[in-house]
Amino acid sequence: MDNKIKIGLIGLGTVGSGVYKTLQKFDNIEIAKIAVHNKKKKRSIENFDESLLTEDGYEVVNDPQIQIVAELMGGCEPAFSLIKQAILNKKHIVTANKELLAKHGEELFKLAQDNNVVILYEAAIAGGIPLIMPIKTILAGNKINKIKAIVNGTTNYILTKMDVQGASYEDILREAQDLGYAETNPTGDVEGFDAAYKITTLATIAFGKRIKFENVYREGITKIRPQDMKLANEMGYKIKLIASAELDEDGRADVRVHPMLVPKTKTLAHIDYVTNAVTLTGHPVGEITLSGPGAGEFPTASSVVGDILAIVSEIGVTDYILPMMRCSHSENAQMIEISETMNKYYISITSKNNIGVIGRIGNLCAENNISVSSIVQKEIKNNCADITVITELCKEIDMQNFIKTLNQDNSVIEVNSLIRVQI
Amino acid sequence: MDNKIKIGLIGLGTVGSGVYKTLQKFDNIEIAKIAVHNKKKKRSIENFDESLLTEDGYEVVNDPQIQIVAELMGGCEPAFSLIKQAILNKKHIVTANKELLAKHGEELFKLAQDNNVVILYEAAIAGGIPLIMPIKTILAGNKINKIKAIVNGTTNYILTKMDVQGASYEDILREAQDLGYAETNPTGDVEGFDAAYKITTLATIAFGKRIKFENVYREGITKIRPQDMKLANEMGYKIKLIASAELDEDGRADVRVHPMLVPKTKTLAHIDYVTNAVTLTGHPVGEITLSGPGAGEFPTASSVVGDILAIVSEIGVTDYILPMMRCSHSENAQMIEISETMNKYYISITSKNNIGVIGRIGNLCAENNISVSSIVQKEIKNNCADITVITELCKEIDMQNFIKTLNQDNSVIEVNSLIRVQI
Repeated sequence: MDNKIKIGLIGLGTVGSGVYKTLQKFDNIEIAKIAVHNKKKKRSIENFDESLLTEDGYEVVNDPQIQIVAELMGGCEPAFSLIKQAILNKKHIVTANKELLAKHGEELFKLAQDNNVVILYEAAIAGGIPLIMPIKTILAGNKINKIKAIVNGTTNYILTKMDVQGASYEDILREAQDLGYAETNPTGDVEGFDAAYKITTLATIAFGKRIKFENVYREGITKIRPQDMKLANEMGYKIKLIASAELDEDGRADVRVHPMLVPKTKTLAHIDYVTNAVTLTGHPVGEITLSGPGAGEFPTASSVVGDILAIVSEIGVTDYILPMMRCSHSENAQMIEISETMNKYYISITSKNNIGVIGRIGNLCAENNISVSSIVQKEIKNNCADITVITELCKEIDMQNFIKTLNQDNSVIEVNSLIRVQI
Repeated sequence: MDNKIKIGLIGLGTVGSGVYKTLQKFDNIEIAKIAVHNKKKKRSIENFDESLLTEDGYEVVNDPQIQIVAELMGGCEPAFSLIKQAILNKKHIVTANKELLAKHGEELFKLAQDNNVVILYEAAIAGGIPLIMPIKTILAGNKINKIKAIVNGTTNYILTKMDVQGASYEDILREAQDLGYAETNPTGDVEGFDAAYKITTLATIAFGKRIKFENVYREGITKIRPQDMKLANEMGYKIKLIASAELDEDGRADVRVHPMLVPKTKTLAHIDYVTNAVTLTGHPVGEITLSGPGAGEFPTASSVVGDILAIVSEIGVTDYILPMMRCSHSENAQMIEISETMNKYYISITSKNNIGVIGRIGNLCAENNISVSSIVQKEIKNNCADITVITELCKEIDMQNFIKTLNQDNSVIEVNSLIRVQI
């Protein structure tokens, strides 16, 4: 008799191919059916059995012999409908779909709980890096209250290249597109949507309270200038797109994605190119950093296959598998508005080279409750001065008012950049 | 009726206290008994119930109501005997005891398997860093073939301080002893025993083949000079005590602990002071690095409590708990002798300032099959020259012969240092 656990795949692109290849070495697992967009497409898989393919995802999720469905197609529909149907059919789910989890995680996890199946999604956040399973299991004794993460390889590649080459965002984006590291329409990456999807789910798991994607503040990297890179470097920082989530003492969550100046003393400052990294702070563990490849055929397959193996290990052993890996957070986190948050800032200003302009900017800071940590007038060209300010911690709303004041001030030609600084 | 899972602790020192405090917040867990060396010792735990204490470890391991024993005393005996008795009594084991696992892991894991209990030991290697559970679960689809790790905080603290301050090993050791980072008898740390215990167990788990502690090659940090730090820095390296394990293509294991020059492009080069980090390379995941606090009351408690919670989550749910976390490697790894290994080397030599001395050293290299990557004559004092050689990959036995030749050569005053270089 055939005792193999039957798996259905939805999607056989980069990640799906990696999962297919990796699962071949496990004798107790059989890929029984694979839903693809186009059966005729040429596949780069050796000895591939094309009879497994179907163009109808419902053939996978309704197949009675399949016990685990791995959804690797991405996007909200039809993935959402297919996964719901699979759960109703009592199949366990493994998914790499960060957008779906960020937008519909609550409904999916509730449905899974009601049907006594698990949804695992290690591959959805930071690719091959062990993250979700460690948080749910070996770190389960912790109260995690802070996450700082680089979870988008495209933007980290662009920022690293801008730093190394002193080149503009536009030039490096084009290069990244040529190399396949950035998509033709790069918005999802460079405007921070991808990172925001990931931090939404990661913060929900880590804090044990549901974060809503629409409450995640988001800024992209398109306005970062090579000059900002250079100035940051000189002051001991690297500029990174940071997905950040913090819980304050009252249990309110501050979750956001935006560029930050990261001190070179932090591990995240040294995470370059397409590598991802996540720094978690909690009690009792303290601060840990997990880093590695955040995307790609094989790293992502590692996480998908790890999830599948965890399910396989307990199917047949118990009717209530993987109790620690279940998710039943129903409480929504109370959120802190970005305007209320306290931040340290880097500001680059071009001003007229008037006598006393630094004093004037200093005064405007004070009038807006902003305490200056350092202020430097760096170069003078065409009778213009470049001024760089680093502030102490101050309130976002005060900073926004200060920037408005600056923009209206006669001595200021332009506020070039406003970037938050990690402390 | 009382449905709490009863835990017995053996040891209530630094780690034990952290575990005790951390477990207080879990309503479903009760610490039922604690074995200590001296019941009368003053404890820094609030509202501590002294009636839980016993000076007889067998009162813990023989207590029929206790389901999990956490052994936090360290050392081989009486820990070994107590744990064996606990296993025979069908109790699950959580331990932070790296020495015991390295020396008696095989016997203990076999006994556990025979008695259908698990032994978990996340805290035994790299303190609070999630490592063992991720390898056993989410990374289970991987073939891991390389580990490079900083797993001893004391030596990493000493090497970091030597680097930052340019101070001698002896001076920094004394400072570390004053601060409690090094023991009065520092041998276990500075000679690499502690790191060797850890890499023995880590490599066994990662490779799925049993490594014997006595086959792990080991060199400590006592001979590292501030000059070596300085030269390494100038050439783009940091000196770290690296616990290393590699599997070659024939499945033979090369496991060792010794100082290495680590390129600054590697994450491990930036792991400073008492922080630990482990870089794993495998397929399909690629290279991941996990870093964080390697010791201390609370980080270690995080891992012990994580292990306890994993057991608790499945007790009562199934009779065969945590199938992925079991260990039944019976095959001993075939080992590669250190003399057979290929390494890149840093060599510091003081020679007489004869004409042609660099040429002579270059010739001796060639005669010993050693290819030179760079050779620099750095300073001349008292008619002596300081010569630094970095080699290409060459065989350890050839290098040892070369060093013998150098020591007998008339133009060589002293071979100051021989340190392997990570590639």
